[in-house]
Amino acid sequence: MREHQTQIRVRYADTDQMGIVHHARYLEYFEQGRSDWLRASGMSYAEIEARGVFFAVTEASIRYRRPAHYDELLTVRTRLLGLRRASLLLGYELWRGQTLLAEGHTRLAATDRRRRPIRLPAELAQRLAAALTP
Amino acid sequence: MREHQTQIRVRYADTDQMGIVHHARYLEYFEQGRSDWLRASGMSYAEIEARGVFFAVTEASIRYRRPAHYDELLTVRTRLLGLRRASLLLGYELWRGQTLLAEGHTRLAATDRRRRPIRLPAELAQRLAAALTP
Amino acid sequence: MREHQTQIRVRYADTDQMGIVHHARYLEYFEQGRSDWLRASGMSYAEIEARGVFFAVTEASIRYRRPAHYDELLTVRTRLLGLRRASLLLGYELWRGQTLLAEGHTRLAATDRRRRPIRLPAELAQRLAAALTP
Amino acid sequence: MREHQTQIRVRYADTDQMGIVHHARYLEYFEQGRSDWLRASGMSYAEIEARGVFFAVTEASIRYRRPAHYDELLTVRTRLLGLRRASLLLGYELWRGQTLLAEGHTRLAATDRRRRPIRLPAELAQRLAAALTP
Repeated sequence: MREHQTQIRVRYADTDQMGIVHHARYLEYFEQGRSDWLRASGMSYAEIEARGVFFAVTEASIRYRRPAHYDELLTVRTRLLGLRRASLLLGYELWRGQTLLAEGHTRLAATDRRRRPIRLPAELAQRLAAALTP
Repeated sequence: MREHQTQIRVRYADTDQMGIVHHARYLEYFEQGRSDWLRASGMSYAEIEARGVFFAVTEASIRYRRPAHYDELLTVRTRLLGLRRASLLLGYELWRGQTLLAEGHTRLAATDRRRRPIRLPAELAQRLAAALTP
Repeated sequence: MREHQTQIRVRYADTDQMGIVHHARYLEYFEQGRSDWLRASGMSYAEIEARGVFFAVTEASIRYRRPAHYDELLTVRTRLLGLRRASLLLGYELWRGQTLLAEGHTRLAATDRRRRPIRLPAELAQRLAAALTP
Repeated sequence: MREHQTQIRVRYADTDQMGIVHHARYLEYFEQGRSDWLRASGMSYAEIEARGVFFAVTEASIRYRRPAHYDELLTVRTRLLGLRRASLLLGYELWRGQTLLAEGHTRLAATDRRRRPIRLPAELAQRLAAALTP
């Protein structure tokens, strides 16, 4: 599970009056990519939260290269770029066919239910390490 | 506190490629009206939730009369139209100056933390009764 | 094409602090259902707009029966309930497996690029009539 | 007009099931800050678009330091950090009272109505230069 691909159909609600997908929606697309990547890796984020571990976003960055439009079918490619004791670094690319539309990353810190930083539980860390892009 | 007025500045993110405010955003505007109405009535919804009472939306309806646009300063007028033992009916109007843009209502059911229906606590019911539009 | 079914994966961004899908997002789910229904009926809304016809939402209503949650895979069932010379009435149901979560409808008025009401073009009206639920 | 301050009341719809403001909403808060900053500087973005100039976001980054919560009254501080012939760099800080919650920036490229890159019109460039943080 080095890279996961998620299909995203652009909703009308995702567009703004410039006629393109609003720049804030890309973070939702990346999040969907991350969510699908985790599920496909055998550890759905819903289950992770149910065990009392939360991934809080501490950094996000996006480079917008080409606009996306209503009704297009896009692909988010998600990879785990870095893994520390208490955080993950994920990379994302958004593609329309062979055209790269955007790239970005988010850093996620592990917390408990009260949002205090914690180390990643051992089993979760092992599974994530297996998914790390070399 | 028969009616509360909330100012809303339309965000760019609220628009869609039709060049107007997307129809789903009106429910956020109404929600902001409801939230401000409760705070102004001396019982903020944040406090209500902190006491273990939640208002779940069970019905919503909107009639869109005129479009709203980016950067316009709108007014939401919120009123309590009905009060039962376990639910509230709220009415909303969205205005731009003297022009009515939309009307709607939402019904809210009181629940506990686990989303089981409950009766409105007595003190809360009394305060709400005082705000009821005759 | 009497009814169309669209799969929706609930995004984390769709939830609110009540731990359920925020009630405004249902309008986006319904819109996705409508969009897929049109595309499957051979007249994508992107193409309809490209020809200068716009569908403006003039009414919406939703009845929320059971909450939806993060990461659930839902189904929107979309049907055309009514067709007039200048407007459409669509009905939606949101299901999680065999459980009905919500029902709703939206009325759409045909407009030109400047949002003036127009009659539905003949060819479009014919295709829509063929998709009308008896 | 070196720095502009915008008040933001956190909406319920802005929260997610972690009980905090969803990380994508910060880009909407920053955008509101930018929009108010432009209006306060005497050149509303609505007018800029009406003249055929569009600001497309080409980069965004955010560092999240402390969570924001429902109903809190926050302040966005917006500054112009850089100005080139065809683009602007804006910086944002999000505060709750004396607590810094987040920082970020966005780069905006000037385009025409068809989203082709253009130089900033002279008058606009002059007004922006006057607002540049030294």
